[in-house]
Amino acid sequence: MTDQYLPKTTRLQIVLDAGRSYDIRVGSGLLASAGEQLRVVSALSQINQAVVLSDSNVGPLYARAAREALHAAGFSTTLFSVAAGEQSKSLANAGELWEAFAAAGIGRDTVVVALGGGVVGDLAGFVASTWMRGVPFVQLPSSLLAMVDSSIGGKTAIDLAAGKNLVGSFYQPAYVLCDLNLLDSLPDAEWANGLAELVKSAIIDSPEFYNWLLENNAALAARERPVLAQAIVRALRFKASVVVADEREAGRRECLNYGHTFAHALETCAGFGAVGHGRAVAEGIRFAARLATEAVGAPVEFAVEQEAALEALALFTPLAPAVAHVRAEELYAAMLSDKKVRDGAVRFVFAEAPGHWQATLVDPDLIKIYLLYWQQAQQ
Amino acid sequence: MTDQYLPKTTRLQIVLDAGRSYDIRVGSGLLASAGEQLRVVSALSQINQAVVLSDSNVGPLYARAAREALHAAGFSTTLFSVAAGEQSKSLANAGELWEAFAAAGIGRDTVVVALGGGVVGDLAGFVASTWMRGVPFVQLPSSLLAMVDSSIGGKTAIDLAAGKNLVGSFYQPAYVLCDLNLLDSLPDAEWANGLAELVKSAIIDSPEFYNWLLENNAALAARERPVLAQAIVRALRFKASVVVADEREAGRRECLNYGHTFAHALETCAGFGAVGHGRAVAEGIRFAARLATEAVGAPVEFAVEQEAALEALALFTPLAPAVAHVRAEELYAAMLSDKKVRDGAVRFVFAEAPGHWQATLVDPDLIKIYLLYWQQAQQ
Repeated sequence: MTDQYLPKTTRLQIVLDAGRSYDIRVGSGLLASAGEQLRVVSALSQINQAVVLSDSNVGPLYARAAREALHAAGFSTTLFSVAAGEQSKSLANAGELWEAFAAAGIGRDTVVVALGGGVVGDLAGFVASTWMRGVPFVQLPSSLLAMVDSSIGGKTAIDLAAGKNLVGSFYQPAYVLCDLNLLDSLPDAEWANGLAELVKSAIIDSPEFYNWLLENNAALAARERPVLAQAIVRALRFKASVVVADEREAGRRECLNYGHTFAHALETCAGFGAVGHGRAVAEGIRFAARLATEAVGAPVEFAVEQEAALEALALFTPLAPAVAHVRAEELYAAMLSDKKVRDGAVRFVFAEAPGHWQATLVDPDLIKIYLLYWQQAQQ
Repeated sequence: MTDQYLPKTTRLQIVLDAGRSYDIRVGSGLLASAGEQLRVVSALSQINQAVVLSDSNVGPLYARAAREALHAAGFSTTLFSVAAGEQSKSLANAGELWEAFAAAGIGRDTVVVALGGGVVGDLAGFVASTWMRGVPFVQLPSSLLAMVDSSIGGKTAIDLAAGKNLVGSFYQPAYVLCDLNLLDSLPDAEWANGLAELVKSAIIDSPEFYNWLLENNAALAARERPVLAQAIVRALRFKASVVVADEREAGRRECLNYGHTFAHALETCAGFGAVGHGRAVAEGIRFAARLATEAVGAPVEFAVEQEAALEALALFTPLAPAVAHVRAEELYAAMLSDKKVRDGAVRFVFAEAPGHWQATLVDPDLIKIYLLYWQQAQQ
């Protein structure tokens, strides 16, 4: 890391009602001034105590810097950590954190700071939203996926034995700070998770973002900092516009599900962890793009172009051998059990062109044919 | 029960922003038409599935009638039950309910119906507020306390090993239906819980409600149905006005804490269950009324009058022997550990006259003197 890559800080705002608007800042090296930044957030004006929640990958690298930044601005801090990985988004961990909060005397005059990726953010957000009926929380995302997707929008969750994200809340952060320097330590598999969401965002957002992505694919694949910063800001702008228009998932927010109907089914059928989320979303975008040609008459060229964009970002790594035995019927059954399904019909989000999407119920037989195509292609 | 006691139905409305306003109906025999009533609640217009949550006392008496009423209006129902008692407001129960919801295929198009007292309402509300990030819920309170207090206001909670109500959410019901017939089966100890809150409401609300209560004390003690119905409606109007003005406990809602600072400390020090909540609140009102004479110069006559009102409702039953050994210092320490305490200072709500209250930090030495008076009076 040298200063030549230091882009200027970009500030975005999520405008919501009832005093719940919040800022997002994106830049390199922001962590060092995190405490000062929190000091000017009005929702935190009465607060001098911070709980930092991190995980066993991110905590050892950045928790010390985060706490020093908070101390420098007069916050006292308490650090909690969970094991890195999706399995930490558990009810058992939420319960242990609540009891640990009580033991540490954490009161209402506390901000919960999530320092980590999506798992830490979802867990910290859920615990913050329910501790004494809600204390403020702040996101310091450490992964590309968390920066472009999970850290904003106010969805918190834990997993149950029966499924992912079944328990949670809509609860907005008071502030989101994306320090690009934290991405230096991001493993390759985690990059794929974020890049797949970037591609999704660009396709759904607009021709401008989509064309920009096609033009900057190589620089993005090389993780060039200025391009990366731009991509993150563009994706955040897109997500912010969707969240502001539909905070509680009543309509427009459904577009964020592009590529995810198939991806979730694939992850379920392969067994969680067998296919990375980014890999699954890339597969899901390809699936939706192909299905869209027949379901809504989207141009074949557009499907091919989306695949090429995913390919250029190296998102089509070989699927695990476990996937070779996943059957079309199993995938369809998994789609039907998604929590967004109503009345036994599967809805897909389709893009007919960049920036033009629709969500629609799809003829089950058509879905099954495309699932069969997919199954055959794995053999 | 005969029809001569059937008062007309009273409808109240809690007006909140963002489509979260809801109705409360009070009357005798309303349970039989619960399904029809839910059918006209706009927040439930898309919903055909109901989860009824009750407990081992209330379920055997009223769950069948509630489900039949729901079936008659086209809802399918699933019944869950927890053991009666505060110990059911646990994380373990919340976890079991969430897993049971998953196993039963409970989706977003579901209303959770709380059929029981405050424990069932708090638990059901918490589970509903977090299931798939929130499904609608409805309160069918079966206790006087739940009717006049806990069923409205949107506070949900579970207890931790470390303390009561430490985990929860602010989450408004979509509808509250108070069927006075359900009170026929209410045990005496439960009556005291509700009556103590009624007295609190009257003192804080207005001279009108307070004087009405003094005049109708005997009829209320005799549980005369028309007087009881009036008392419930008056208390609901009071609570509604407070909740609407301060949904998330930022200010005015603090008045609801009248008598509760001492009550919570007493319950903690005696060991939960050793002193009934209503009994503790009666003691807490007496304590606050006496302390107010010195702390804010409230008239001694007013303190005496409040005690007489509590006495007339038979709320000063003998305290358990366990209380005889509770020390002033322990009570003070318990007050300091309350989740509403900030910066190590104890706030009390005082009434100088009916309808005139204030919340104020109190000199610790003054509190300790009055706690010592209290301790000496127990011997």
